[in-house]
Amino acid sequence: MAERVAVIGAAGFAGALAARLVHRHPRYELAAITARGDDVGVRLDALYPHHRVPLVLEELDLDRHADVDAAIVAYPHGASAPVVAALRRAGVRVVDLSADFRLRDPDVYAQWYGEHGAPPLFGTAVYGLPELYRADLAGAELVAGPGCYPTAAILALAPLAAANLLADVVIDAKSGVSGAGRAATRDTHFVTVDENVTPYKVEGHRHAPEIEQELGTAAVTFVPHLVPLDQGELVSCYVTPTEPLTPETLGALYADAYAAEQFVELADGPPGVRDVRETNLCRIHARVDQRTGKVLVFAAIDNLWKGTSSQAIQSLNLMLGRPEAEGLAA
Amino acid sequence: MAERVAVIGAAGFAGALAARLVHRHPRYELAAITARGDDVGVRLDALYPHHRVPLVLEELDLDRHADVDAAIVAYPHGASAPVVAALRRAGVRVVDLSADFRLRDPDVYAQWYGEHGAPPLFGTAVYGLPELYRADLAGAELVAGPGCYPTAAILALAPLAAANLLADVVIDAKSGVSGAGRAATRDTHFVTVDENVTPYKVEGHRHAPEIEQELGTAAVTFVPHLVPLDQGELVSCYVTPTEPLTPETLGALYADAYAAEQFVELADGPPGVRDVRETNLCRIHARVDQRTGKVLVFAAIDNLWKGTSSQAIQSLNLMLGRPEAEGLAA
Amino acid sequence: MAERVAVIGAAGFAGALAARLVHRHPRYELAAITARGDDVGVRLDALYPHHRVPLVLEELDLDRHADVDAAIVAYPHGASAPVVAALRRAGVRVVDLSADFRLRDPDVYAQWYGEHGAPPLFGTAVYGLPELYRADLAGAELVAGPGCYPTAAILALAPLAAANLLADVVIDAKSGVSGAGRAATRDTHFVTVDENVTPYKVEGHRHAPEIEQELGTAAVTFVPHLVPLDQGELVSCYVTPTEPLTPETLGALYADAYAAEQFVELADGPPGVRDVRETNLCRIHARVDQRTGKVLVFAAIDNLWKGTSSQAIQSLNLMLGRPEAEGLAA
Amino acid sequence: MAERVAVIGAAGFAGALAARLVHRHPRYELAAITARGDDVGVRLDALYPHHRVPLVLEELDLDRHADVDAAIVAYPHGASAPVVAALRRAGVRVVDLSADFRLRDPDVYAQWYGEHGAPPLFGTAVYGLPELYRADLAGAELVAGPGCYPTAAILALAPLAAANLLADVVIDAKSGVSGAGRAATRDTHFVTVDENVTPYKVEGHRHAPEIEQELGTAAVTFVPHLVPLDQGELVSCYVTPTEPLTPETLGALYADAYAAEQFVELADGPPGVRDVRETNLCRIHARVDQRTGKVLVFAAIDNLWKGTSSQAIQSLNLMLGRPEAEGLAA
Repeated sequence: MAERVAVIGAAGFAGALAARLVHRHPRYELAAITARGDDVGVRLDALYPHHRVPLVLEELDLDRHADVDAAIVAYPHGASAPVVAALRRAGVRVVDLSADFRLRDPDVYAQWYGEHGAPPLFGTAVYGLPELYRADLAGAELVAGPGCYPTAAILALAPLAAANLLADVVIDAKSGVSGAGRAATRDTHFVTVDENVTPYKVEGHRHAPEIEQELGTAAVTFVPHLVPLDQGELVSCYVTPTEPLTPETLGALYADAYAAEQFVELADGPPGVRDVRETNLCRIHARVDQRTGKVLVFAAIDNLWKGTSSQAIQSLNLMLGRPEAEGLAA
Repeated sequence: MAERVAVIGAAGFAGALAARLVHRHPRYELAAITARGDDVGVRLDALYPHHRVPLVLEELDLDRHADVDAAIVAYPHGASAPVVAALRRAGVRVVDLSADFRLRDPDVYAQWYGEHGAPPLFGTAVYGLPELYRADLAGAELVAGPGCYPTAAILALAPLAAANLLADVVIDAKSGVSGAGRAATRDTHFVTVDENVTPYKVEGHRHAPEIEQELGTAAVTFVPHLVPLDQGELVSCYVTPTEPLTPETLGALYADAYAAEQFVELADGPPGVRDVRETNLCRIHARVDQRTGKVLVFAAIDNLWKGTSSQAIQSLNLMLGRPEAEGLAA
Repeated sequence: MAERVAVIGAAGFAGALAARLVHRHPRYELAAITARGDDVGVRLDALYPHHRVPLVLEELDLDRHADVDAAIVAYPHGASAPVVAALRRAGVRVVDLSADFRLRDPDVYAQWYGEHGAPPLFGTAVYGLPELYRADLAGAELVAGPGCYPTAAILALAPLAAANLLADVVIDAKSGVSGAGRAATRDTHFVTVDENVTPYKVEGHRHAPEIEQELGTAAVTFVPHLVPLDQGELVSCYVTPTEPLTPETLGALYADAYAAEQFVELADGPPGVRDVRETNLCRIHARVDQRTGKVLVFAAIDNLWKGTSSQAIQSLNLMLGRPEAEGLAA
Repeated sequence: MAERVAVIGAAGFAGALAARLVHRHPRYELAAITARGDDVGVRLDALYPHHRVPLVLEELDLDRHADVDAAIVAYPHGASAPVVAALRRAGVRVVDLSADFRLRDPDVYAQWYGEHGAPPLFGTAVYGLPELYRADLAGAELVAGPGCYPTAAILALAPLAAANLLADVVIDAKSGVSGAGRAATRDTHFVTVDENVTPYKVEGHRHAPEIEQELGTAAVTFVPHLVPLDQGELVSCYVTPTEPLTPETLGALYADAYAAEQFVELADGPPGVRDVRETNLCRIHARVDQRTGKVLVFAAIDNLWKGTSSQAIQSLNLMLGRPEAEGLAA
């Protein structure tokens, strides 16, 4: 018997893709999709023909939309928490794609995001990175989907963090424009982005504290850059290790860490974001820079897939006791 | 002694480029630049660093801004006419980049654009295509800058039109995104345009009547397409000639028509829009399709330069008695 | 029991994608992949990580590679025919992706391609466009996969052709660069293509006679253009109909023609190539230009998928008695 | 009286642009352009229409081509030195764009490039970065044009290096494809680059020792990335300073260093490569990361202009006693 899943906030890039993945999932039934504002009443395949989801976007009505087994909530930061709280009160399992439940330190949350929208739930979510929290995700009721940059950065650096090898970390990240969301702004205008590369949020990006939380270090310098492509994200990590590492040691560390992971690929050379486009895969290459002793780790993901929506399905599968890769075949 | 030139509406793509071209013109002085709304008070080089125009965008004040020799007005259709009328009353020569003064038949104008904003001036402007209206532009007081598609299409087909050879014309046009202007919309969002090609305005584009007016024929099928690049426009014209043409006849027709034109290049093979990027050039290739007898004409321009702003300078030079190419060297 | 399928010439874009689609097909076994030259001995997932096909490219050895139920041959025009002939002699069913078996008139073939590499087989293949030749494809032994442009153009115009409504046809096609194949040339260099749009083969493209053959008319003007994207193809067709058509008549014509087709989508507005990226779909919009009476038909496909490799799987499914859509879900 | 300048190796991207810039220079005469192989006999404007240089590429003939005042040599590394030596013997002033004369330590040269092609000249060139070597460039006879990455990286970091503030440096560089040159390879194929971001030469790039030489430090980790655009280069530098810096101190350091430089722009926010496209400018933003104390410096150039060919003109102007900016106006 199919689990019924709603996608709350399905008009944006992340929610729409989540809706598509639920719709095509061999087991789940896409019970409803909701939106706010002008998108209510529009069929999703009119907004996004390539997703081919024939459902109409409805206004959120908890009386009807909470009558599901699970929901994926794709609301903006801040707006998400109250809706998640209401769904939880109705007993619905939730994967929340916003930042509202990712952080565990309320002071850090307050510093970067301000007041929280559902304090009693703060700190209660499982961090939805299956490669690190698989056991906790099994049967979980509230999951905070990681940010796209943290997904790539944490997978890139977790083996080093687990071995206490991170003395100093620089993360230079490059992302396609879909990461900026569906809103039409000067920053997402084609003419702004085309033939351009620009650092942004150089004064501090909200994903930095999330990365530090999961890596257990405060020594992270993180700068994202916008590059002219739609989907795809590369993090280039420059690590000063706490002790010198040989290529063999480093290779073994990563091989051991990810031997059993079906969605992490270790590559012999540097990954490109095309290699993982429209997949739930993270492709990683780690190496020692023989000249400086630094450890270089490159990780590529599709920011909308593994960075957001397909990873949400991966978590949902674990929450609902399904095979982790169900519905995620490339 | 420098002529003083203002650019009215310099915050958009066309106006900003016009401001740059005036600013760097060896003869003209950029006396003022104006904008509407949030852009007032902003320095133009903050909005468009690559133009390097250090002036501040001011709110339009005719008392001050009409104290110039000439103005380039880059307002939207409809909004332009009243401002142009005011400038003309103050004795300012005007190149208007909107559609407000391009058409000569008031019924056609009404059908495509609605009510006109300055009826007494309707039909009084010279059409700012120097290759066709050079004599009229000398000393002209009001010039209507052609649309970008008409610029390319008319230059592509004028030799055939002049020889009464146009029996039937299909124009398939491809434009970069800057042609859609600076407004951030779903249609100009990077993710909409990237890796995409789309026909638009297939129900009828306002540039069609303008093309027909200048070519003197009502037989034009015109369909524009949006392609993923910023500046550049190609028109591919498929002409059923009124009589069969040999390659030699066709070649001679174009060579004669454009022998003396410094901004029209006749190419041996099909032009690409890169060939004319950031120039005032129109690059044309005409040939007979031996299999069907059709005449194929391809013309490439930079939609913001020859299609709009540099062509305005070309017209302005003629209006003010300056060398036609002054300030337009590549 | 799985049918065993080989892909001959799997190092190019079309063959590699065919290998991927066979590899992931729920029923077929990818028995072998072959290549020529330097690619022999290389694993396909080293050349194309995103296809994730872990087989090694072998040199063609008919003793081994003809021991399959079917083969997809992705060789260049001319090189394909002898290999196809050898496979057929060994009893292997073949889908050939080259042009060697698409044409039915030997004089036309000679004119465009020169001498044929397997004369006894000339004219014996079924044209692999399932929407037109479904019955013939069932159980067929030799299938000629259509060119990518003909696939889109024929699907766009077949309903009009079947009703004898084509008096004159202009096809302006736009293709992504993958259509030019894997060879690194000046024409496929990033810097040549980026920020560019160029017509090519304006003196006549080999796909024109193929389109004319299938539409049953000699009145086709066909000009392809290269646009800066990787996968995707749009044909914009401008038809002078033999008699005036109303929007209702035209709409009914297309609705009837494609009501039962699962891989043809009729759209309310103009299609974009993004709408069909990485799918076996052709998305079509037909309309009457009220100003000129012309019929405009736009069709979008992914040139590598429906235009080549996924359509080959669609044909293969029919040849082998499998469900037509098997292995082709989006 | 015009100085006569030849461009040796004008068929590649750098040489062709150098030829254009000499051709349009108000003072210099483009005396000759040469090429090797198939390009001999071709007009440069057939290869590069947008450069509009109507000269024919000739085979190098020192009897004729050394009869000039100066030459810009744009040969590959290794091939350049013998030609430069011959030109110098003939008394021609040379700006060499290859790496042959950039390094000053013969062991470092041997390690990265192998045997040198003109040992007597090794170490005799002035490094062609006018902002650092202006006095030495005046009247110089042999100038080594810097690599494009070193140009951006050195300008980004020179103020810190001069103040002995560089304890540890990570340079994450992003370049458009023109930096890879005109050769058509798998790496420059549109389909490889489009919608992709890839680190390359992660095992060590030849520009690293050049950067270290000029900054006077061996602590540089340098990783270049290929991004999908044609011209433009951004270096993102992550510096651990030898002592803590305040924003004010850092700002003053850069303001002082570059106050008099007409081709260095200090920006209030992060630069984009569009800001400097087709200019000789380097646009820099330096800031202190308050969270980690690291100094972040971002510098954008056009890799073909300031990174190569227009910078060569800037050096040439100094060598020949002309105004430094002559012929380089945007």
